[in-house]
Amino acid sequence: VRWHTADLLDPAAAQTVVAEAAPECLLHLAWYAEHGLFWTSPENVRWVEATLRLLRAFADTGGLRAVVAGTCAEYEWTPEGGVLGEDAPLRPATLYGAAKNATRSVAQALAAEIGFELAWGRIFFPYGPGEAPTRLVPSVARALLGGNEAAVTDGRQLRDFVYVDDLAAAFVALVDSDVCGAVNIGSGEAVAVHEVVSLVGEALGRPDLIRFGALPGRPGEPATLVADVGRLRDEVGFRRRVPLREGVARSVAWWQAHGSGALDPAAAQR
Amino acid sequence: VRWHTADLLDPAAAQTVVAEAAPECLLHLAWYAEHGLFWTSPENVRWVEATLRLLRAFADTGGLRAVVAGTCAEYEWTPEGGVLGEDAPLRPATLYGAAKNATRSVAQALAAEIGFELAWGRIFFPYGPGEAPTRLVPSVARALLGGNEAAVTDGRQLRDFVYVDDLAAAFVALVDSDVCGAVNIGSGEAVAVHEVVSLVGEALGRPDLIRFGALPGRPGEPATLVADVGRLRDEVGFRRRVPLREGVARSVAWWQAHGSGALDPAAAQR
Repeated sequence: VRWHTADLLDPAAAQTVVAEAAPECLLHLAWYAEHGLFWTSPENVRWVEATLRLLRAFADTGGLRAVVAGTCAEYEWTPEGGVLGEDAPLRPATLYGAAKNATRSVAQALAAEIGFELAWGRIFFPYGPGEAPTRLVPSVARALLGGNEAAVTDGRQLRDFVYVDDLAAAFVALVDSDVCGAVNIGSGEAVAVHEVVSLVGEALGRPDLIRFGALPGRPGEPATLVADVGRLRDEVGFRRRVPLREGVARSVAWWQAHGSGALDPAAAQR
Repeated sequence: VRWHTADLLDPAAAQTVVAEAAPECLLHLAWYAEHGLFWTSPENVRWVEATLRLLRAFADTGGLRAVVAGTCAEYEWTPEGGVLGEDAPLRPATLYGAAKNATRSVAQALAAEIGFELAWGRIFFPYGPGEAPTRLVPSVARALLGGNEAAVTDGRQLRDFVYVDDLAAAFVALVDSDVCGAVNIGSGEAVAVHEVVSLVGEALGRPDLIRFGALPGRPGEPATLVADVGRLRDEVGFRRRVPLREGVARSVAWWQAHGSGALDPAAAQR
């Protein structure tokens, strides 16, 4: 392994790093992803530009296969939601979703014209060690680790939680396959948010501190957002390895090891 | 009027020129548009990047209203086609259409987040003096001016031809309005291609040189591509000023004045 480091927001960087590495395959995960801010930030637009620049540089040096991280936020999110296949309607409601979806559309058309392969992994709801401390699992875990109550919603909405190691392995499998186009990256399992929260409580032996329904649900939030993982399973040949209980246990253990104030303390305030 | 000149493909240019001009309004027409090549060229991707960069720079300096040139190629083109309203399905079949549509999608989401106005003029089939010599009107006019036969298709397909002065005036009206979102820029009139060709023959007094049906039609080309101009007419308040016969006569006169070999002779070979 040889590491090449570059800031892809620098207009010349992609060309330089791609020329140095002359890769046959590209796995592009970089994007603006600051928790709570990424949905609406103009930074998304800079990453559209940066991603297209990178793909052009990759194509210019004869790259053969590119795999890029997309998002389930490219789909239309109705109040009901559902189990979403890759052919579900694309109607992103956020700048983040619009930016990813637009990038995919241009990338696919460019790949078709130039003749390189392009796969687009639509990520559902990742979790795992090291994530932003204000996200679901860390925020509950950190409260309970500190002996504090955790106020949460009723948690009835169903989501597709995918453990970070599975997410990474799914992308590696996608790179190693010859599958093109959009591929959902999820577990395929519909899990109620309250189940995840309960598993955190169990793992830490403090289910008594959890206050379901103490926070109001977000109006208009889809009842169900779950991946149809048929393509990932049958075409890419990937099956998840880390079940939910195990993934939550590992995540909680990470916060136990790193302390409830781990990572950026300022971020925890947001 | 003060002119500022910049190459928008230069990553720093937009920021510099927008900072100099500090515009309240932006009318952005620039794109790669070389006849015959623009449908499939990777240059389209560079113009996605350049356009988004320009819009970011415009927003950063407090710009209030941006109007950008889109295209009827953003719409799905079925074999039948039809009279297309702005809510017609968006399913571009070309890299050009995908690039424009993606740019619109990101631009609209950015405008909504930042709070500037964005209108997007979807141009139908422009014609007029000075266009590429291999396009429909010039290619027929140049043949007839040289005393040569003009081989054309049967020309039964219906299109929405918009004279260049009307196109420009429609964009000016759109800038001066407060209409946001997509607005079709066309004549609203369904005209058979053979009618345009016949008008060129009449204008030059040589209808005898036109050979309808000597060229095969393009397979899968939509039968009808016509703009529903309801928004342009009723919301923007624009009506076209130059009827087809007059527009063709002016175009033909331009080629008479500039000679059949006018403009780039190399382009005429393509």
